[in-house]
Amino acid sequence: MQQQVSVITLGIADLGRARRFYEQGFGWTAVFANDEIVFFQMNGFVLGLWLASALEAETGLRRAGTSGAFAMAHNVPARSDVQPVMDRLVQAGGTVTRAASAPPHGGYRGYVADPDGHSWEIAWNPAWAIDDKGHVSFGL
Amino acid sequence: MQQQVSVITLGIADLGRARRFYEQGFGWTAVFANDEIVFFQMNGFVLGLWLASALEAETGLRRAGTSGAFAMAHNVPARSDVQPVMDRLVQAGGTVTRAASAPPHGGYRGYVADPDGHSWEIAWNPAWAIDDKGHVSFGL
Repeated sequence: MQQQVSVITLGIADLGRARRFYEQGFGWTAVFANDEIVFFQMNGFVLGLWLASALEAETGLRRAGTSGAFAMAHNVPARSDVQPVMDRLVQAGGTVTRAASAPPHGGYRGYVADPDGHSWEIAWNPAWAIDDKGHVSFGL
Repeated sequence: MQQQVSVITLGIADLGRARRFYEQGFGWTAVFANDEIVFFQMNGFVLGLWLASALEAETGLRRAGTSGAFAMAHNVPARSDVQPVMDRLVQAGGTVTRAASAPPHGGYRGYVADPDGHSWEIAWNPAWAIDDKGHVSFGL
Protein backbone atom coordinates (compact mmCIF):
# COMPACT_ATOMS: atom_id res chain seq x y z
CA MET A 1 0.00 0.00 0.00
CA GLN A 2 1.25 3.52 -0.72
CA GLN A 3 2.88 5.27 2.26
CA GLN A 4 0.39 8.01 1.77
CA VAL A 5 -1.81 10.34 3.81
CA SER A 6 -4.35 12.10 1.57
CA VAL A 7 -5.90 14.51 4.05
CA ILE A 8 -5.28 15.82 7.54
CA THR A 9 -8.39 17.38 9.01
CA LEU A 10 -8.27 19.56 12.11
CA GLY A 11 -11.47 19.99 14.11
CA ILE A 12 -12.03 23.67 14.89
CA ALA A 13 -14.67 25.66 16.75
CA ASP A 14 -14.75 28.89 14.72
CA LEU A 15 -13.99 28.79 11.02
CA GLY A 16 -13.13 32.48 10.67
CA ARG A 17 -10.74 32.38 13.62
CA ALA A 18 -9.01 29.24 12.37
CA ARG A 19 -8.79 30.52 8.81
CA ARG A 20 -7.21 33.76 9.99
CA PHE A 21 -4.47 31.80 11.80
CA TYR A 22 -3.55 29.76 8.71
CA GLU A 23 -4.01 32.48 6.10
CA GLN A 24 -2.49 35.42 7.98
CA GLY A 25 -0.12 33.52 10.26
CA PHE A 26 1.34 31.04 7.78
CA GLY A 27 0.40 33.11 4.72
CA TRP A 28 -1.30 30.14 3.04
CA THR A 29 -4.04 30.34 0.38
CA ALA A 30 -7.14 28.16 0.55
CA VAL A 31 -8.06 26.05 -2.46
CA PHE A 32 -11.69 25.64 -1.35
CA ALA A 33 -13.92 27.07 1.37
CA ASN A 34 -17.58 26.99 2.34
CA ASP A 35 -19.36 27.77 5.61
CA GLU A 36 -18.08 24.72 7.47
CA ILE A 37 -14.79 23.64 5.89
CA VAL A 38 -11.63 25.12 4.37
CA PHE A 39 -9.06 23.11 2.38
CA PHE A 40 -5.43 23.97 1.69
CA GLN A 41 -3.40 22.17 -0.97
CA MET A 42 -0.21 21.15 0.82
CA ASN A 43 3.01 19.32 -0.10
CA GLY A 44 1.52 16.08 -1.38
CA PHE A 45 -1.70 16.10 0.62
CA VAL A 46 -4.63 18.32 1.61
CA LEU A 47 -5.08 20.06 4.98
CA GLY A 48 -8.67 20.66 6.09
CA LEU A 49 -10.13 22.85 8.82
CA TRP A 50 -13.60 21.57 9.64
CA LEU A 51 -16.10 22.42 12.36
CA ALA A 52 -15.36 19.93 15.14
CA SER A 53 -19.05 19.11 15.55
CA ALA A 54 -19.24 18.07 11.89
CA LEU A 55 -15.97 16.14 12.09
CA GLU A 56 -17.22 14.25 15.13
CA ALA A 57 -20.49 13.37 13.40
CA GLU A 58 -18.54 12.17 10.34
CA THR A 59 -15.93 10.01 12.10
CA GLY A 60 -18.13 8.55 14.80
CA LEU A 61 -15.72 9.76 17.50
CA ARG A 62 -16.50 12.16 20.34
CA ARG A 63 -13.65 14.41 21.35
CA ALA A 64 -15.55 17.46 22.65
CA GLY A 65 -13.65 19.74 20.29
CA THR A 66 -10.33 19.43 22.10
CA SER A 67 -7.00 18.81 20.48
CA GLY A 68 -5.07 15.67 21.30
CA ALA A 69 -1.79 13.84 21.52
CA PHE A 70 -0.37 14.92 18.20
CA ALA A 71 1.72 17.68 16.71
CA MET A 72 2.56 18.99 13.27
CA ALA A 73 5.82 20.60 12.21
CA HIS A 74 6.48 23.32 9.67
CA ASN A 75 10.17 23.39 8.81
CA VAL A 76 11.81 26.60 7.69
CA PRO A 77 14.98 27.13 5.62
CA ALA A 78 17.11 28.87 8.26
CA ARG A 79 17.48 29.11 12.03
CA SER A 80 16.75 32.82 11.79
CA ASP A 81 13.32 32.09 10.27
CA VAL A 82 11.97 30.31 13.35
CA GLN A 83 11.23 33.29 15.61
CA PRO A 84 9.65 35.53 12.91
CA VAL A 85 7.25 32.74 11.90
CA MET A 86 6.33 32.13 15.55
CA ASP A 87 5.71 35.86 15.97
CA ARG A 88 3.42 35.93 12.93
CA LEU A 89 1.46 32.95 14.22
CA VAL A 90 0.98 34.64 17.60
CA GLN A 91 -0.21 37.82 15.88
CA ALA A 92 -2.74 35.66 14.00
CA GLY A 93 -4.17 34.12 17.18
CA GLY A 94 -1.68 31.43 18.17
CA THR A 95 -0.24 30.76 21.63
CA VAL A 96 3.39 29.89 22.33
CA THR A 97 3.56 26.64 24.31
CA ARG A 98 7.37 26.39 24.18
CA ALA A 99 9.74 29.23 23.36
CA ALA A 100 12.26 28.68 20.58
CA SER A 101 15.45 26.90 21.65
CA ALA A 102 18.00 24.35 20.42
CA PRO A 103 16.95 20.74 21.20
CA PRO A 104 19.52 18.04 22.06
CA HIS A 105 19.06 16.34 18.67
CA GLY A 106 20.14 19.47 16.79
CA GLY A 107 18.48 22.32 14.91
CA TYR A 108 16.28 24.97 16.50
CA ARG A 109 12.54 24.97 17.25
CA GLY A 110 9.61 26.37 19.16
CA TYR A 111 5.95 25.40 19.53
CA VAL A 112 2.80 27.43 18.86
CA ALA A 113 -0.74 26.15 19.39
CA ASP A 114 -3.38 27.29 16.91
CA PRO A 115 -6.60 28.91 18.28
CA ASP A 116 -8.10 25.42 18.81
CA GLY A 117 -5.03 24.06 20.58
CA HIS A 118 -3.55 22.11 17.66
CA SER A 119 0.21 22.07 18.13
CA TRP A 120 2.68 23.37 15.53
CA GLU A 121 6.42 23.00 15.81
CA ILE A 122 8.25 25.69 13.85
CA ALA A 123 11.61 24.12 13.17
CA TRP A 124 14.91 24.57 11.47
CA ASN A 125 16.25 21.07 10.83
CA PRO A 126 19.27 21.14 8.52
CA ALA A 127 19.31 17.32 8.25
CA TRP A 128 15.91 17.12 6.50
CA ALA A 129 15.80 18.27 2.87
CA ILE A 130 12.88 20.34 1.55
CA ASP A 131 12.53 20.68 -2.22
CA ASP A 132 11.03 23.65 -4.07
CA LYS A 133 7.58 22.04 -3.94
CA GLY A 134 7.81 21.67 -0.18
CA HIS A 135 8.33 17.90 -0.20
CA VAL A 136 10.25 16.90 2.90
CA SER A 137 12.67 13.96 3.16
CA PHE A 138 13.76 12.26 6.35
CA GLY A 139 17.49 12.55 7.11
CA LEU A 140 19.88 11.87 9.97
CA MET B 1 5.71 30.81 3.18
CA GLN B 2 5.58 27.30 1.69
CA GLN B 3 2.23 25.52 2.15
CA GLN B 4 4.14 22.75 3.79
CA VAL B 5 3.83 20.38 6.74
CA SER B 6 7.15 18.64 7.42
CA VAL B 7 6.11 16.17 10.10
CA ILE B 8 2.96 14.80 11.67
CA THR B 9 3.66 13.20 15.02
CA LEU B 10 1.11 10.97 16.74
CA GLY B 11 1.42 10.49 20.48
CA ILE B 12 1.15 6.79 21.33
CA ALA B 13 1.27 4.74 24.54
CA ASP B 14 2.98 1.55 23.33
CA LEU B 15 5.48 1.72 20.51
CA GLY B 16 5.28 -1.96 19.54
CA ARG B 17 1.49 -1.90 19.41
CA ALA B 18 1.43 1.29 17.32
CA ARG B 19 4.15 0.06 14.99
CA ARG B 20 2.28 -3.18 14.37
CA PHE B 21 -0.81 -1.23 13.30
CA TYR B 22 1.10 0.86 10.76
CA GLU B 23 3.47 -1.82 9.51
CA GLN B 24 1.10 -4.77 9.37
CA GLY B 25 -2.17 -2.87 8.86
CA PHE B 26 -1.07 -0.35 6.25
CA GLY B 27 1.97 -2.36 5.16
CA TRP B 28 4.30 0.61 5.56
CA THR B 29 8.07 0.43 6.15
CA ALA B 30 9.78 2.59 8.78
CA VAL B 31 12.73 4.74 7.75
CA PHE B 32 13.98 5.08 11.34
CA ALA B 33 13.17 3.60 14.73
CA ASN B 34 14.57 3.63 18.24
CA ASP B 35 13.02 2.78 21.60
CA GLU B 36 10.73 5.82 21.74
CA ILE B 37 10.02 6.94 18.18
CA VAL B 38 9.36 5.52 14.71
CA PHE B 39 9.42 7.57 11.50
CA PHE B 40 7.81 6.75 8.16
CA GLN B 41 8.71 8.62 4.97
CA MET B 42 5.36 9.63 3.51
CA ASN B 43 4.16 11.51 0.41
CA GLY B 44 6.05 14.76 0.88
CA PHE B 45 6.37 14.67 4.66
CA VAL B 46 7.35 12.41 7.56
CA LEU B 47 4.93 10.62 9.91
CA GLY B 48 6.19 9.99 13.44
CA LEU B 49 4.89 7.72 16.21
CA TRP B 50 6.28 8.97 19.50
CA LEU B 51 5.60 8.04 23.11
CA ALA B 52 2.92 10.49 24.21
CA SER B 53 4.79 11.28 27.43
CA ALA B 54 7.84 12.38 25.42
CA LEU B 55 5.70 14.32 22.94
CA GLU B 56 4.00 16.17 25.80
CA ALA B 57 7.32 17.04 27.39
CA GLU B 58 8.60 18.30 24.04
CA THR B 59 5.62 20.45 23.03
CA GLY B 60 4.73 21.86 26.43
CA LEU B 61 1.15 20.63 26.09
CA ARG B 62 -0.65 18.16 28.36
CA ARG B 63 -3.13 15.91 26.63
CA ALA B 64 -3.02 12.84 28.89
CA GLY B 65 -2.25 10.60 25.94
CA THR B 66 -5.69 10.91 24.36
CA SER B 67 -6.37 11.58 20.72
CA GLY B 68 -8.21 14.73 19.72
CA ALA B 69 -10.36 16.58 17.24
CA PHE B 70 -8.53 15.57 14.11
CA ALA B 71 -8.56 12.85 11.50
CA MET B 72 -6.30 11.60 8.76
CA ALA B 73 -7.38 10.05 5.48
CA HIS B 74 -5.72 7.37 3.38
CA ASN B 75 -7.25 7.35 -0.07
CA VAL B 76 -7.30 4.16 -2.11
CA PRO B 77 -7.52 3.70 -5.90
CA ALA B 78 -10.89 1.94 -6.07
CA ARG B 79 -14.13 1.64 -4.13
CA SER B 80 -13.48 -2.08 -3.76
CA ASP B 81 -10.21 -1.34 -1.88
CA VAL B 82 -11.89 0.38 1.08
CA GLN B 83 -13.23 -2.66 2.96
CA PRO B 84 -10.10 -4.86 2.58
CA VAL B 85 -7.90 -2.06 3.95
CA MET B 86 -10.26 -1.53 6.89
CA ASP B 87 -10.20 -5.28 7.54
CA ARG B 88 -6.40 -5.32 7.58
CA LEU B 89 -6.29 -2.37 9.98
CA VAL B 90 -8.69 -4.12 12.35
CA GLN B 91 -6.59 -7.28 12.23
CA ALA B 92 -3.58 -5.11 13.17
CA GLY B 93 -5.28 -3.64 16.25
CA GLY B 94 -7.60 -0.92 14.89
CA THR B 95 -11.24 -0.32 15.80
CA VAL B 96 -13.98 0.57 13.32
CA THR B 97 -15.70 3.78 14.42
CA ARG B 98 -17.85 4.06 11.29
CA ALA B 99 -18.60 1.27 8.86
CA ALA B 100 -17.87 1.88 5.18
CA SER B 101 -20.65 3.66 3.29
CA ALA B 102 -21.21 6.26 0.57
CA PRO B 103 -21.23 9.84 1.92
CA PRO B 104 -23.50 12.54 0.41
CA HIS B 105 -20.51 14.29 -1.21
CA GLY B 106 -19.62 11.20 -3.26
CA GLY B 107 -17.10 8.38 -3.10
CA TYR B 108 -17.04 5.68 -0.42
CA ARG B 109 -15.41 5.63 3.02
CA GLY B 110 -15.18 4.20 6.50
CA TYR B 111 -13.29 5.11 9.67
CA VAL B 112 -10.85 3.07 11.75
CA ALA B 113 -9.17 4.33 14.93
CA ASP B 114 -5.59 3.20 15.56
CA PRO B 115 -4.77 1.54 18.93
CA ASP B 116 -4.32 5.00 20.50
CA GLY B 117 -7.59 6.36 19.12
CA HIS B 118 -6.13 8.36 16.21
CA SER B 119 -8.75 8.43 13.49
CA TRP B 120 -8.14 7.20 9.93
CA GLU B 121 -10.61 7.59 7.11
CA ILE B 122 -10.11 4.95 4.43
CA ALA B 123 -11.59 6.57 1.36
CA TRP B 124 -12.19 6.16 -2.32
CA ASN B 125 -12.50 9.68 -3.71
CA PRO B 126 -12.45 9.68 -7.51
CA ALA B 127 -12.30 13.51 -7.64
CA TRP B 128 -8.86 13.71 -5.97
CA ALA B 129 -5.88 12.62 -8.05
CA ILE B 130 -3.06 10.55 -6.54
CA ASP B 131 0.17 10.27 -8.52
CA ASP B 132 2.58 7.33 -8.47
CA LYS B 133 4.52 8.90 -5.59
CA GLY B 134 1.35 9.22 -3.53
CA HIS B 135 1.04 12.99 -3.90
CA VAL B 136 -2.60 13.94 -3.58
CA SER B 137 -4.26 16.90 -5.31
CA PHE B 138 -7.49 18.56 -4.26
CA GLY B 139 -10.33 18.27 -6.79
CA LEU B 140 -14.06 18.93 -6.99
